[in-house]
Amino acid sequence: MSAPLDPPALPEELGRREDDVLERIAAIVGRRIIPRGEVHVGDDAAVLAPIVGQALISIDVAVFGVHLDAELFPLEDLGFKAVAAAVSDLAAMGGRPRAAVIGVSSPPGTDLEELHRGIADAAAMTNCPIVGGDLTRSRDISVAVTVLGECPDLGAVLRSGAKPGDVVLVTGPLGRSAAGLRRRRAGAGLDDELVVAHRRPWPRLDEGIAARNAGAHAMMDLSDGLGLDLHRLADASRVGFDLSVVPVAGGATLEEAISGGEDYELVIVTDNPARLRMIFHDRGLRDPLTIGVVNADPGVRTYQGEPFARRGFQHQL
Amino acid sequence: MSAPLDPPALPEELGRREDDVLERIAAIVGRRIIPRGEVHVGDDAAVLAPIVGQALISIDVAVFGVHLDAELFPLEDLGFKAVAAAVSDLAAMGGRPRAAVIGVSSPPGTDLEELHRGIADAAAMTNCPIVGGDLTRSRDISVAVTVLGECPDLGAVLRSGAKPGDVVLVTGPLGRSAAGLRRRRAGAGLDDELVVAHRRPWPRLDEGIAARNAGAHAMMDLSDGLGLDLHRLADASRVGFDLSVVPVAGGATLEEAISGGEDYELVIVTDNPARLRMIFHDRGLRDPLTIGVVNADPGVRTYQGEPFARRGFQHQL
Repeated sequence: MSAPLDPPALPEELGRREDDVLERIAAIVGRRIIPRGEVHVGDDAAVLAPIVGQALISIDVAVFGVHLDAELFPLEDLGFKAVAAAVSDLAAMGGRPRAAVIGVSSPPGTDLEELHRGIADAAAMTNCPIVGGDLTRSRDISVAVTVLGECPDLGAVLRSGAKPGDVVLVTGPLGRSAAGLRRRRAGAGLDDELVVAHRRPWPRLDEGIAARNAGAHAMMDLSDGLGLDLHRLADASRVGFDLSVVPVAGGATLEEAISGGEDYELVIVTDNPARLRMIFHDRGLRDPLTIGVVNADPGVRTYQGEPFARRGFQHQL
Repeated sequence: MSAPLDPPALPEELGRREDDVLERIAAIVGRRIIPRGEVHVGDDAAVLAPIVGQALISIDVAVFGVHLDAELFPLEDLGFKAVAAAVSDLAAMGGRPRAAVIGVSSPPGTDLEELHRGIADAAAMTNCPIVGGDLTRSRDISVAVTVLGECPDLGAVLRSGAKPGDVVLVTGPLGRSAAGLRRRRAGAGLDDELVVAHRRPWPRLDEGIAARNAGAHAMMDLSDGLGLDLHRLADASRVGFDLSVVPVAGGATLEEAISGGEDYELVIVTDNPARLRMIFHDRGLRDPLTIGVVNADPGVRTYQGEPFARRGFQHQL
């Protein structure tokens, strides 16, 4: 869009400013090899070869200073995290990424190249090409990432399929991201292992596809913390749950594991955990961890026999 | 994402705040009837039935106070314009909309329902269902709209296909949006015809599809003004152009028609304008207006024989 309030008749040398920036950014995020029949950055819309099966689409917005502490982390990390969080939404459906588009708002003078290096890193690591974007002015530095994915066999795994008696598992121990933020605040370096978990979250794409192939009943990613997200899954499925254990990552606290968020581990609900484990094992994925079972009463949600309260991060809007 | 910096353990009644807002918004933008096999708002990603042919995707970001004068126009208009601008990018390829996702950043207390009424209006008018979104906190009110479209016959019309000798046309007279903004500043009401053109732009979807069917060589939408966008099309096609006329809308000035932007008329380049006119006529569309011809020299870009300078709105980034 880039729409005018006061469209100035710019001199030629200034008039190319936005287009110039776009060109430099395209060089950072652009792929050397674009599939035949596709057109990425540079037209009104990107053109993609046909999507196989169901199309998946999700948008995530990350604001510097809200989603990432602007005093403690470089701008590059905001770009990385924004893309990783969006791609994680595809992982949570059992899908795989096809493309992403990025909308960036920022004040004049923002290092857009640094921001886009983080975006490009996450895109490369998740095999999700950046095919388009928009740049605009604002007071905050904000990154909106939309990911488009596909689910070839029409079997995207929803939040709403959990059944009483199903087993609840997670793809890894929790609390690493929150622990990393705490450590960073206490002075740990950017390359500290837990700090890296906060800066560079890793969407569980292979795990999501494996869980879909294993016939998982329900799935979601843990972006806001088990203490909030598991309730959301249970709400969507109209069920309750009884947790026996919350796996706490080394270096994290139980509270960080429950309400820390941003781990992007998947929570998987299935009536056949043995099959899930076998498929994970066959694909060289880490053994998923059983945390509890689904019950039929949406009013009964427990952890080791005690009520498991809804808690975790929500924006006050 | 909605990721935590300081994940507070919220009491139950506060902990539902964001989810509550999301529910109210879903009621505003949601469709009563969702196609079989699709899942819209409420899961990690939206699930869509297969896309036919090429997939098109584009993102646009609109910031209140930057893309729309926050003193003169209601917030509802920001939502409407953001969606219309994004859908216009699909029109510019000859595609049709399949879905949109919306990322909104805003300060606490923003009337998100008003914003989403504008979003819902534009979505309904362009037949583009809103299938997902994300809400977050920021200082500015910012709306990122990603549209997903399809082009059944793989023939999306690019900016890069213009050939020397081709005829350049536009789908309507220009300058209405800029004239509307000028009139509003001078005190005109929100229902003044030109003010409405600024508040409620209309993507030329039918015209875009007709132009694609007519075999147009190149196409784009006029979002930043002919004085900038036509250069972009010519750059992509590595050609020049000679304009004979710039059609000025009633009530607008020539300068508004050239560099006003936000008209969202399409510029169409074809070697067969007669066929284009016939197809437009058959479909009850307004006769496209010839404005010039394409020449082979990218350095020669004229209007009535004089150099046609690049001018129009660019963000200073």
